[in-house]
Amino acid sequence: MKRIVSVLIAVGALAGVVAYIVPASGEAEREAAPIYGVKIPPGYRNWQLISVNHLAGGNMKQVSAQLGNDIAIKAFREGKLPFPDGAIIAALHWNEASSDENDKVLAMGFPGAGLQSFVAGPAVNIQFMVKDSKKYAATGGWGFADFTNGEPGNEALHKTCFSCHEPAKDRDYVFTRYAP
Amino acid sequence: MKRIVSVLIAVGALAGVVAYIVPASGEAEREAAPIYGVKIPPGYRNWQLISVNHLAGGNMKQVSAQLGNDIAIKAFREGKLPFPDGAIIAALHWNEASSDENDKVLAMGFPGAGLQSFVAGPAVNIQFMVKDSKKYAATGGWGFADFTNGEPGNEALHKTCFSCHEPAKDRDYVFTRYAP
Repeated sequence: MKRIVSVLIAVGALAGVVAYIVPASGEAEREAAPIYGVKIPPGYRNWQLISVNHLAGGNMKQVSAQLGNDIAIKAFREGKLPFPDGAIIAALHWNEASSDENDKVLAMGFPGAGLQSFVAGPAVNIQFMVKDSKKYAATGGWGFADFTNGEPGNEALHKTCFSCHEPAKDRDYVFTRYAP
Repeated sequence: MKRIVSVLIAVGALAGVVAYIVPASGEAEREAAPIYGVKIPPGYRNWQLISVNHLAGGNMKQVSAQLGNDIAIKAFREGKLPFPDGAIIAALHWNEASSDENDKVLAMGFPGAGLQSFVAGPAVNIQFMVKDSKKYAATGGWGFADFTNGEPGNEALHKTCFSCHEPAKDRDYVFTRYAP
């Protein structure tokens, strides 16, 4: 059972499905995430877009955006691997919400097609990957952090981050690809 | 028939489902969109994120991001309506692509749950709304533009933009809401 919970947490961290009740808010200075000591980087919401995605199936329907600081964005655009020290990637997850107003407009044009628009609803969590090849040498050079409503998740959660990212080792542990 | 095609185009413009064969690319100086004379704003891909969404149903599965220039982002964050002159909103649409590598990690943690991750695939098109209350007084103060692979859509397409946005009149014709 312990193992199952651990895996659930690990995948939850990747997919951003942990603790989806309390919406994230603000960028205030908060405490650091356990293990890695990562704090919420000031101004992360102003960073440039890497890509978007969404998660379907079961009760976990989310839309997400990945943002990067200048160092990360530059590396993505140049296809540079591994990411240089100082790169930070932010993953913002929201529960998806249906949009009646969008669907009405779609239905006018595509009667019977059942087109549906899903938009970003309440925030689920925000996750960060911080590149520091010396400090985080034991975890591929990355420090990980997961915040819900500005508060970091616990140590058990953060212990799962790196193992979940290991399958993306050939892309420096980063799943997200830059969207044109 | 003409009317149906027109509505299809109109909704296509809203949803970004027009001309999904040729991927959009680059930000090179291109010609202006018909009617409104809007060109692709330089550097739009560096703008800040307003929100994300996705479209489901039929063959039209897309993930999208809306970006705003500084004036637009400020207005969104302050909840300021109508948007001030100079505000520009960009809507980037990609065909959604499944992600085997993401799904594998999800399947490890949620066996049988059928969780699926969908990421941004080839670009569909890029659309812009440019606020100029004098120049575009006849269309709610907004100029509209739709580009596929850097080339603007035709006049028939651009004739449909405003009517599709009219249902959002109480939010200054902007469907997208700012995601926290």
